Amino acid sequence: MKKFMDKDFLLTTPAAKTLFHDYAAKQPIIDYHCHINPREIAEDRKFENITQVWLGGDHYKWRLMRSAGVEEKYITGDASDREKFQKWAEVLGRAVGNPLLHWSHLELQRYFGYDGVLNGSTAEEVWQLCNKKLAEPGMSVRGLIKQSGVEVICTTDDPADSLEWHKKLAEDSSFDTKVYPAWRPDKAMNIEKPEFTSYIAKLAEVSGVEIHSFADLKKALCARMDFFGEMNCRVSDHALEYVYFSPISDSEAEEIFSKRINGGEVSAEEAASYKTMFMLFCGREYSRRGWVMQLHYGTKRDNNTLQYKKLGPDTGYDCINNYAPSSLTADFLNALECENALPKTIIYSLNPNDNQAIDTILGCFQSSEAVGKIQHGSAWWFNDHKTGMREQLISLGNLGYLAGFVGMLTDSRSFLSYPRHEYFRRILCGFFGELVENGEYPDDMAALGEIVSDISYGNAKKYFNF
Amino acid sequence: MKKFMDKDFLLTTPAAKTLFHDYAAKQPIIDYHCHINPREIAEDRKFENITQVWLGGDHYKWRLMRSAGVEEKYITGDASDREKFQKWAEVLGRAVGNPLLHWSHLELQRYFGYDGVLNGSTAEEVWQLCNKKLAEPGMSVRGLIKQSGVEVICTTDDPADSLEWHKKLAEDSSFDTKVYPAWRPDKAMNIEKPEFTSYIAKLAEVSGVEIHSFADLKKALCARMDFFGEMNCRVSDHALEYVYFSPISDSEAEEIFSKRINGGEVSAEEAASYKTMFMLFCGREYSRRGWVMQLHYGTKRDNNTLQYKKLGPDTGYDCINNYAPSSLTADFLNALECENALPKTIIYSLNPNDNQAIDTILGCFQSSEAVGKIQHGSAWWFNDHKTGMREQLISLGNLGYLAGFVGMLTDSRSFLSYPRHEYFRRILCGFFGELVENGEYPDDMAALGEIVSDISYGNAKKYFNF
Amino acid sequence: MKKFMDKDFLLTTPAAKTLFHDYAAKQPIIDYHCHINPREIAEDRKFENITQVWLGGDHYKWRLMRSAGVEEKYITGDASDREKFQKWAEVLGRAVGNPLLHWSHLELQRYFGYDGVLNGSTAEEVWQLCNKKLAEPGMSVRGLIKQSGVEVICTTDDPADSLEWHKKLAEDSSFDTKVYPAWRPDKAMNIEKPEFTSYIAKLAEVSGVEIHSFADLKKALCARMDFFGEMNCRVSDHALEYVYFSPISDSEAEEIFSKRINGGEVSAEEAASYKTMFMLFCGREYSRRGWVMQLHYGTKRDNNTLQYKKLGPDTGYDCINNYAPSSLTADFLNALECENALPKTIIYSLNPNDNQAIDTILGCFQSSEAVGKIQHGSAWWFNDHKTGMREQLISLGNLGYLAGFVGMLTDSRSFLSYPRHEYFRRILCGFFGELVENGEYPDDMAALGEIVSDISYGNAKKYFNF
Repeated sequence: MKKFMDKDFLLTTPAAKTLFHDYAAKQPIIDYHCHINPREIAEDRKFENITQVWLGGDHYKWRLMRSAGVEEKYITGDASDREKFQKWAEVLGRAVGNPLLHWSHLELQRYFGYDGVLNGSTAEEVWQLCNKKLAEPGMSVRGLIKQSGVEVICTTDDPADSLEWHKKLAEDSSFDTKVYPAWRPDKAMNIEKPEFTSYIAKLAEVSGVEIHSFADLKKALCARMDFFGEMNCRVSDHALEYVYFSPISDSEAEEIFSKRINGGEVSAEEAASYKTMFMLFCGREYSRRGWVMQLHYGTKRDNNTLQYKKLGPDTGYDCINNYAPSSLTADFLNALECENALPKTIIYSLNPNDNQAIDTILGCFQSSEAVGKIQHGSAWWFNDHKTGMREQLISLGNLGYLAGFVGMLTDSRSFLSYPRHEYFRRILCGFFGELVENGEYPDDMAALGEIVSDISYGNAKKYFNF
Repeated sequence: MKKFMDKDFLLTTPAAKTLFHDYAAKQPIIDYHCHINPREIAEDRKFENITQVWLGGDHYKWRLMRSAGVEEKYITGDASDREKFQKWAEVLGRAVGNPLLHWSHLELQRYFGYDGVLNGSTAEEVWQLCNKKLAEPGMSVRGLIKQSGVEVICTTDDPADSLEWHKKLAEDSSFDTKVYPAWRPDKAMNIEKPEFTSYIAKLAEVSGVEIHSFADLKKALCARMDFFGEMNCRVSDHALEYVYFSPISDSEAEEIFSKRINGGEVSAEEAASYKTMFMLFCGREYSRRGWVMQLHYGTKRDNNTLQYKKLGPDTGYDCINNYAPSSLTADFLNALECENALPKTIIYSLNPNDNQAIDTILGCFQSSEAVGKIQHGSAWWFNDHKTGMREQLISLGNLGYLAGFVGMLTDSRSFLSYPRHEYFRRILCGFFGELVENGEYPDDMAALGEIVSDISYGNAKKYFNF
Repeated sequence: MKKFMDKDFLLTTPAAKTLFHDYAAKQPIIDYHCHINPREIAEDRKFENITQVWLGGDHYKWRLMRSAGVEEKYITGDASDREKFQKWAEVLGRAVGNPLLHWSHLELQRYFGYDGVLNGSTAEEVWQLCNKKLAEPGMSVRGLIKQSGVEVICTTDDPADSLEWHKKLAEDSSFDTKVYPAWRPDKAMNIEKPEFTSYIAKLAEVSGVEIHSFADLKKALCARMDFFGEMNCRVSDHALEYVYFSPISDSEAEEIFSKRINGGEVSAEEAASYKTMFMLFCGREYSRRGWVMQLHYGTKRDNNTLQYKKLGPDTGYDCINNYAPSSLTADFLNALECENALPKTIIYSLNPNDNQAIDTILGCFQSSEAVGKIQHGSAWWFNDHKTGMREQLISLGNLGYLAGFVGMLTDSRSFLSYPRHEYFRRILCGFFGELVENGEYPDDMAALGEIVSDISYGNAKKYFNF
């Protein structure tokens, strides 16, 4: 029996151990997609206690606590930080089969040097230990990033964002990690949302382009892309229900835009058509600029209206949307390909059933422009665990060129999340180790070690041009 | 190599053996959803031979025999019981990879003390043994239930049912197992079926409420719910194609009901809207009464019209329906939640691809009202085997709070099915044992043993308020 | 650690080894569905070099090379055969987790006696070895088929095909392997395609039946079926997006046909209705003739328009289509069953998520006409690897009668593909070995060996009446 999460955690074969310890572990981290706040890096934020870091905004933990019947008071309510931590520790101790058990203990081990098990009875000991440790100088935001070996971070930013904190960071030579913006123009796409018109007004102001038409909007967005580009943006991101493809003419798109910008409502069909045209425009621009296009889909958000009104978005009330026709995804990519305007693209679905369809779509649009020009993104959000990661790796291996995979990202809002790269690398090495053990891949550690290093680091560095 | 189905069947690690033998095995059974006939319990039915028990109404076995090319004469036809048993034994001996091999041998081991392998050549020996054993006093329906350690049974009952046998059972102090009715109002929901109007007439008679409108129907159903409640009903059940959500106004619902009750036909859209309103009404009532709502969906029934005409429903001609939009399920639960009228709910889909979507929906509607207020039901019907159960457990573990799971039910029409609880517990302990073996959960048998006991018994007891 | 792909490749238990070496390995091959060219068999084609055999038309390999960023010049372009082989070897050496690694090395081992590992640095050695070997007399098309132990081959043929090469092969007593045509009338079904009308004209000419109506088309097809039947055709094949079921009246079908044949366009709904009527007609005819109906669905083809224009179909630009309502499949089979006209049927979906739905549909239409009258075809195309095959076997085992499965086919365009039957048999024996090892099936090698032999060979022989 293996000790709980020891140094060979998830490494069940000799080959897996070699691959992880000799190759994967030493690679730097390129965190090409996350949701951390650049201001907190620029200001080098410090934390008073472990509840602040862990439970301040982590909807994964909140959901688990709610599922265990914990009162909201101890989750997002007015209980004390110590009380909240107690409730969390009690739930975590019983979280058998849940990735939060692993993430949390990797963080306790790596950042706090705690090798025990957190549960209701050890909560006090861990509380004291963590808070003492958090007071040390190396435990600020920059300290955490530095000790994690992070080379590049891409945040997620709205086109209307001033990027002031990115500017400050770029000018600050005392911090080695590169912090780049990423372009996420969802608000300019979501034409059906109530806030659309006010957002367009804001974008007009920020860009200095008056927006009366869809053509104007594109001009304004191009101006902002130019600015993001100057700030070293090389990657975009889109949150979609599914990949839309119901193209219309430019004049039809203008009509829909005009109706909406003048306060009218658009039908579901009109919204899907507008979004198609919006995404085609984006794809062309990314292709021209050499940016990577990230497509995240398969989500239904903010499902609990009462809690949304109390807590807002990203508070743990989202679920998988299982409507995502693979035919539309293929048609969308083909439309760009037909114009020679298909950018490097990474596809993520929240529905793990989409793995195989995605992996067969990739193969239809590859080219010598890049190794793995069209990528299947690492297991995302609800799939970010051993099961989900293994299934993504196995499917990509079966149907594509796994050795060209750009690998892991945190997609996180927390500065303690970098061990998820370690988690991914352990699962990757565990998988490869099994193949060697079973005679399904040659026992050639040099060849596999190179592949492991590439997936951990080298592929992303080349792919994104960092 | 392990012996075929010995005492450590499905327990591949030391931790699994400890968890099963020291914790799971000794827990009583709460069978909160099944289809057995309360009359047969009240009358303490006895069986003449093993074919009567095994092949009298078990469509799982019938399907397997048909798939193996056995003539219908030996399945539901006029062959002798001994001949039917022979054919079954021949098929079972070759049923590699099929759960019926395990279910049948668990039953042979537990109830008949037979440790061999049933196949064509042992059929005579097993026939003799079983029939001799069935003549013993402890092998009546009550004897079988008693020796299985069953504490509570919930049957499945129509609102128009008199519950006379439940009454008799409640009054009979000689039988310790509690037998409660469960509320299944499908016939009042299925407005498109030919038998709808005659059913409504019957319900009016039984309830003493004249039914001319949807409002009247609700009144009649409330009267019957009151009666079911007096008879200790605490759980409902619904068979749905998918979870409907196309709400309409009350007056629109009345129009549809009126058209149908006067002999008209309703369109598919009208039926879906009526069913939405029907289900919202039910949800509110369950919430008010503290009943649990069970939603079973993903089924397409009675697919073979010729055989349906000969044999009727539930004879082995159903399949998975893969149309079930997760967005509608989320919207339905949210609509009830917005009225503070969402009852405790258990969701089951016949399509195992729905596991992850369901598990992410649960997390959007949990509350401190109960541990795991919204549950993902145990692997159901076509998924009731090692693969299906493991996948449900793994998905629920990854995405929810597995320690709060209410666990197994038989969903069975047979009095020999209780070993399926043992089957489930072995799979559960097997899964947990692997986590411990691999260092993915601490080697803490007290903690895990408590969780195993809770999932086997304690959680259901608390959740249903038994 | 096991040596890379040694004699016990994929056989991880003693039982698996016994089952494979003592039972499976010695069975002949019935390749009941493939895409090889009968002319090349009749003419006993020889190959100049390994690139010709391997990279001449294999879109699996092309896709992998494109995914690895190889220039099209080295794939389908004008680079030399030696250069192309080098690029392929470099990609293959890094193809961890991909079935092409296994297929290619099985072929190198079985046909070329090469036990090493092909990669960039061994490419020259392998190139020399293979080309030398290909010059030997036993390495012609017939030599390869003979040494592979192939008893029957069914090619895939258009109704308008003259079957001249089949005729020559039938008359040639020097070649023992039976080569039969299979009926694939897709072009007569795909009414929406531009080439439909010219195809109908061609069919009229070949059949000698003037075609002015759908009734005429059926007459022409019947004439061709008669001819195919005389040439020993016993199996059909259909490529469908999904199994259509929107039946219309005969006169409505005639109207749609008439509109199209006179140069008009048909709507998507009309096409689906016409195809429904076309498939019902086919099913009835197959039933009457005792032919097997193969349904292949879940594909979206030719997704890259630019490459389609350059390279044509079947060049590596297809993907999974995840729209395939299980309800329609069930309704289609039921419609034929209601007329007592359901033929033996094999269902394949390209989407592995459809496994369970398919396996539950089978069970609704079985009969004593054949063991496993309705079959779930072996893991197909993108699923033709260890993961896909295991999942198909596990699902079929859980939900149906696996012992009656007709097993593997190559579906290949290459004469070196027969080791995929070996690959399948190893995976099958590996799976059964695990069941024995874990005590989930009795350690009865005689019983399991018989089942393994049946699935490898005997079931197909009986099922297709070869």
